[in-house]
Amino acid sequence: MNGHFITFEGGEGAGKTTILHNIHLKLESLGYNVLSTREPGGIDIAEQIRQIILDTSNTKMEERTEALLYAAARRQHLVEKVIPALEEGKVILCDRFIDSSLAYQGYARGLGMDEVLTVNQFAIKDKMPDLTLFFDIEPKKGLARIASNKSREKNRLDLETLVFHEKVYKGYQILTEKFPDRIRPINADQSLERVEKEALISILKHLQN
Amino acid sequence: MNGHFITFEGGEGAGKTTILHNIHLKLESLGYNVLSTREPGGIDIAEQIRQIILDTSNTKMEERTEALLYAAARRQHLVEKVIPALEEGKVILCDRFIDSSLAYQGYARGLGMDEVLTVNQFAIKDKMPDLTLFFDIEPKKGLARIASNKSREKNRLDLETLVFHEKVYKGYQILTEKFPDRIRPINADQSLERVEKEALISILKHLQN
Repeated sequence: MNGHFITFEGGEGAGKTTILHNIHLKLESLGYNVLSTREPGGIDIAEQIRQIILDTSNTKMEERTEALLYAAARRQHLVEKVIPALEEGKVILCDRFIDSSLAYQGYARGLGMDEVLTVNQFAIKDKMPDLTLFFDIEPKKGLARIASNKSREKNRLDLETLVFHEKVYKGYQILTEKFPDRIRPINADQSLERVEKEALISILKHLQN
Repeated sequence: MNGHFITFEGGEGAGKTTILHNIHLKLESLGYNVLSTREPGGIDIAEQIRQIILDTSNTKMEERTEALLYAAARRQHLVEKVIPALEEGKVILCDRFIDSSLAYQGYARGLGMDEVLTVNQFAIKDKMPDLTLFFDIEPKKGLARIASNKSREKNRLDLETLVFHEKVYKGYQILTEKFPDRIRPINADQSLERVEKEALISILKHLQN
């Protein structure tokens, strides 16, 4: 496999989705063959799993069930979309991956990061991301950005309490310490242009190694 | 929790489903409060998950995705049905549980028993069965029983090769050695009446301890 598997992580309002889009275009203009994706990524089985998770009538959904379903959808998206693209030598930019589960479910929801990691290691086997960018911004500031952005549709996680988002942030900080070789923090408390530039430099450094 | 969680395990044609039904009646006549179940057990979320697994148009379903989905359905069935019944002090007879995943997916499909165990331990947390009966019969003989039983509808697993069923059998033997305190082998190569009697004695011994 000659491709590069790069994931974008961070709390709400960190700007990662917009930046991912812009970096995709920049990398293409530099001649890279790029695939942008996010789970479930149009993969039929993963979409079916996602529907169960998101079905608001499934009020009895237990947290561990949910974590296992996310891991199942992750596996299928990885096998059907990410791995084939890696084999074609592409640069894959993936909006959220294993670290989201570790920060949100493992840490913030209290299931335990190590336990959620174990389940996800089963799901991804040896396909950890080659590089992960953590868009680092205090939750209060990130949420303020979302609030001022009228065009952004609020999702279920945007509506969680600040305490929850602070836990997520703490989870990402722990991960950054735990996986220093893989996770690179990007200061996301700057203008989008600057954040994007910092992220692009990190990616290019990785690709040119 | 004062209930008892008893699981029935074994290959195809071992007679466990029929015996479970008869033992349910016997235990009730002895005054026990009994719940018989099997996954997904009418639990709405678990049924939805099962539909994804069994949907024949999902030909791209990868083995690890499938194992994670089984674990997710197991979790929800456990939380919504088994644990509440345990809390009511019932004797739960469950047709297949964690050991089926370990023998079929972990061993016979080659995913690794320890890996599948890890995922399932996340799913069941500390709710391992109190007692597991392994209905022990050579696959060749079990399959011959099925073949001669015209009223039994063949399922997907019945159609696997003998080699596969022999691997499943080997998987159960390994489990029986690994968990000698929990798993009790029952000689299933006898008349149904005798198998049932042996199983009932094991269960009563456990209940009276």
